Amino acid sequence: MLDDVFHALADPTRRLMVERLTRGPASVSELAEPLQMTLPGVMQHLKVLDDAGLTISEKRGRVRWRRLNADAMAAAETWIGERRRIWNARLDALQQLLQADAPPADEP
Amino acid sequence: MLDDVFHALADPTRRLMVERLTRGPASVSELAEPLQMTLPGVMQHLKVLDDAGLTISEKRGRVRWRRLNADAMAAAETWIGERRRIWNARLDALQQLLQADAPPADEP
Repeated sequence: MLDDVFHALADPTRRLMVERLTRGPASVSELAEPLQMTLPGVMQHLKVLDDAGLTISEKRGRVRWRRLNADAMAAAETWIGERRRIWNARLDALQQLLQADAPPADEP
Repeated sequence: MLDDVFHALADPTRRLMVERLTRGPASVSELAEPLQMTLPGVMQHLKVLDDAGLTISEKRGRVRWRRLNADAMAAAETWIGERRRIWNARLDALQQLLQADAPPADEP
């Protein structure tokens, strides 16, 4: 699942679509509007977002809407965040160790 | 830059390498050790991580080490996090609006 989420976010067009969807659900034509792209191209990007679980597709009447799925975004954010925090904690501990070993600084 | 970071994280082998590097810098052979993979394959994955800025390569004596670059991780985490928070704030506002419109629940 993380494979698909990160792969989906690796493309600037798809990140633009996510960006648009943070402002609310959108139809395919609304998502296509700012893009210089054929409809099949747009649909292909949407399929990648849907398959990754980043977007949820819903049909109301004759129009298909997409909305963001915060859970998939949270999963990716958490994966990076946890690893970054472990590494930062390690760096902090190392820095404290170096400061403890250093001779005391002269008073000004 | 986000293209490269997300692309790098979309592969489970590369995420395993990042995972290993949260425990401290590692040589190529240390990173290769848990993987069922040829050395050229390992080097290729490391190049993707280096190019994305997720890892920093440093040569000490005859050994080349990799360490994590928290800045690249923070950039990706922030991109997802900000968008998730905007979307969640929208959902919360919508829910409050729905609750304000709903008739009061009966007392038990």
